[in-house]
Amino acid sequence: MTPGIPDEMFSRDRTPMTKEEVRVLTLAKLRLKPAAQVLDVGAGTGSISVECARLVPGGKVWAVEKDSLAVNLIWENCGKFGLENVRIIQGAAPACLEGLPPLDGAVIGGSGGRLGEIVRRVKTLLKPGARLVINAILLETLTTALMVLKEEGFREVDLISVAISRGRGLGDHTALQPLDPVFIIWGNKGEE
Amino acid sequence: MTPGIPDEMFSRDRTPMTKEEVRVLTLAKLRLKPAAQVLDVGAGTGSISVECARLVPGGKVWAVEKDSLAVNLIWENCGKFGLENVRIIQGAAPACLEGLPPLDGAVIGGSGGRLGEIVRRVKTLLKPGARLVINAILLETLTTALMVLKEEGFREVDLISVAISRGRGLGDHTALQPLDPVFIIWGNKGEE
Amino acid sequence: MTPGIPDEMFSRDRTPMTKEEVRVLTLAKLRLKPAAQVLDVGAGTGSISVECARLVPGGKVWAVEKDSLAVNLIWENCGKFGLENVRIIQGAAPACLEGLPPLDGAVIGGSGGRLGEIVRRVKTLLKPGARLVINAILLETLTTALMVLKEEGFREVDLISVAISRGRGLGDHTALQPLDPVFIIWGNKGEE
Amino acid sequence: MTPGIPDEMFSRDRTPMTKEEVRVLTLAKLRLKPAAQVLDVGAGTGSISVECARLVPGGKVWAVEKDSLAVNLIWENCGKFGLENVRIIQGAAPACLEGLPPLDGAVIGGSGGRLGEIVRRVKTLLKPGARLVINAILLETLTTALMVLKEEGFREVDLISVAISRGRGLGDHTALQPLDPVFIIWGNKGEE
Repeated sequence: MTPGIPDEMFSRDRTPMTKEEVRVLTLAKLRLKPAAQVLDVGAGTGSISVECARLVPGGKVWAVEKDSLAVNLIWENCGKFGLENVRIIQGAAPACLEGLPPLDGAVIGGSGGRLGEIVRRVKTLLKPGARLVINAILLETLTTALMVLKEEGFREVDLISVAISRGRGLGDHTALQPLDPVFIIWGNKGEE
Repeated sequence: MTPGIPDEMFSRDRTPMTKEEVRVLTLAKLRLKPAAQVLDVGAGTGSISVECARLVPGGKVWAVEKDSLAVNLIWENCGKFGLENVRIIQGAAPACLEGLPPLDGAVIGGSGGRLGEIVRRVKTLLKPGARLVINAILLETLTTALMVLKEEGFREVDLISVAISRGRGLGDHTALQPLDPVFIIWGNKGEE
Repeated sequence: MTPGIPDEMFSRDRTPMTKEEVRVLTLAKLRLKPAAQVLDVGAGTGSISVECARLVPGGKVWAVEKDSLAVNLIWENCGKFGLENVRIIQGAAPACLEGLPPLDGAVIGGSGGRLGEIVRRVKTLLKPGARLVINAILLETLTTALMVLKEEGFREVDLISVAISRGRGLGDHTALQPLDPVFIIWGNKGEE
Repeated sequence: MTPGIPDEMFSRDRTPMTKEEVRVLTLAKLRLKPAAQVLDVGAGTGSISVECARLVPGGKVWAVEKDSLAVNLIWENCGKFGLENVRIIQGAAPACLEGLPPLDGAVIGGSGGRLGEIVRRVKTLLKPGARLVINAILLETLTTALMVLKEEGFREVDLISVAISRGRGLGDHTALQPLDPVFIIWGNKGEE
């Protein structure tokens, strides 16, 4: 299956999950290559880690998540898709980001209010030119992301705002059901 | 590179092109497999054909386009990405849809006002369960797509409306620049 | 108070209500004058009738609603705002649209699946040049509205699609909570 | 005419103008009363000042604008609508905000990068409970607006994001043409 795994194929219990549409847009902005080493901070159900892992068969995904219920879901979802290239790190970023190899890409889906610190730590792990992508539900995360990426010298800092509605059947008719609006922000680590 | 090729990597001249974000959402809804036979009607610059061809290395993409300038762009774009599994059919659908193998997926990006006819013809080419995805800029195309897919017995007919804005730098600041809103509609051919 | 009464000032029980933002946009498209005779079909809680009545102190609003619970809400809401220029017609349009004076404007917020008939009946009541505005949640209503208005010779038929999100406080932070997307379609009755 | 004057009724030359739909939403959030004293900072073409002035026949609107071309447009537009209750102040806020009476409402449509200062100055002019509304095109303005309003003790600070598309006729068909996305942020000055 190509990127954009249907939401219902993931175990999620009540853990918030990045929706299919936002996931494929996030993946597009990550611009991964098949052997990439990828970091997923605030992995939640692991839906983004799973999609990344399938795109980097010769690489590896490091899924960081502090909530133990969510960590179990990541295990379960990796199992469902037969993935062996996901490494789960249970802990809170940035403290737990030790011993990682140089990274080709990173996505921050949740930062627990410590986005600035996490970006600065992740930057030290990224290879020159590697891309960092941040998903923001909160307006404050959006602004912090833009500001920190620029302050830290990331290149080609840019964003999209995503407002997608899904069809909702009402009898024979169709209304639109909006997904929660999301901002996707990214930048490339400068060459040194 | 993973799905979501940057727009500027395609030759496009003045031919309208499906934007990166809409392209990856369209691909996600197509749910292709690596050996899939795929049809792209109204291929334009070939941007969707190119992305499909990269997702189906063991399959083939049939790109249908009537405009000769656009046909040249498809050739050029396939060349840029070193693709050998795209077959270009110059002509107007549905008349030119002859001699195609059974299809695993189809996308209609442009129909020249003949969407109903094209859907009915494409349906005869699709394998049972195969998915048809339609991109609509026009409200009339949206409605016709929903109606025809239901009339023709497609299953799980559904849609998303896509409103994405890109960042637009203004000095040190960032405004939002909306892409043209698009509807993506799809359905699966019923099993017989 | 100027147009855009806060939602919480209306009694609504569980009756669906046009949200403040959609209400002011609808009013803007109606282009009422102070002495206007206005028809509100599918008045629901009466929120649009109330706002219209305040804009036409020398005119009158005819609020048509079939549901008796909703009719009670209209009474209650007119009372709250001290309005004496709203006339409530309990019944289903178009059958109940008898004995109305020539109209300067009309809004259709709900049509019970009979939009075509209602538009044709309302057209006979509108003065030449008077505007009809239709609010559509359903894609099918959107299309029917556009089609019927054109078929019936309305002029300057046009629409807006409305995607508004409200702020949603999350601790000290702010996320966006989307309202249901709505289409507002309108046209002017042709001069005879 | 009720609020929501069609854009084409204003003289605008090349001065950026708040679009009809954004204007009526801004007015709704201002919650003016007929005798209100209103300030419009960064008045541009005066489209918001004109609409406010019509809503406060017993009050007054103070339109602040530094650009002399735009100031001429404000005069012209006030003349078109026969308004005598608009006072134009040519100058840059906050410096030029001298000698104003206590205000019942204020809108900031443009701040020339000095939003914080302007909000602090306007706050001293607002009556307790009076509302300040800020229109933001830039993400940085959005964030600053939220932050400053909270810091300055404004109550009920909230916002909407506005994504409206207008119909665009293509032959017999209709596409959607997005207006530039805008954020509208507001708060009430705390009682002392």
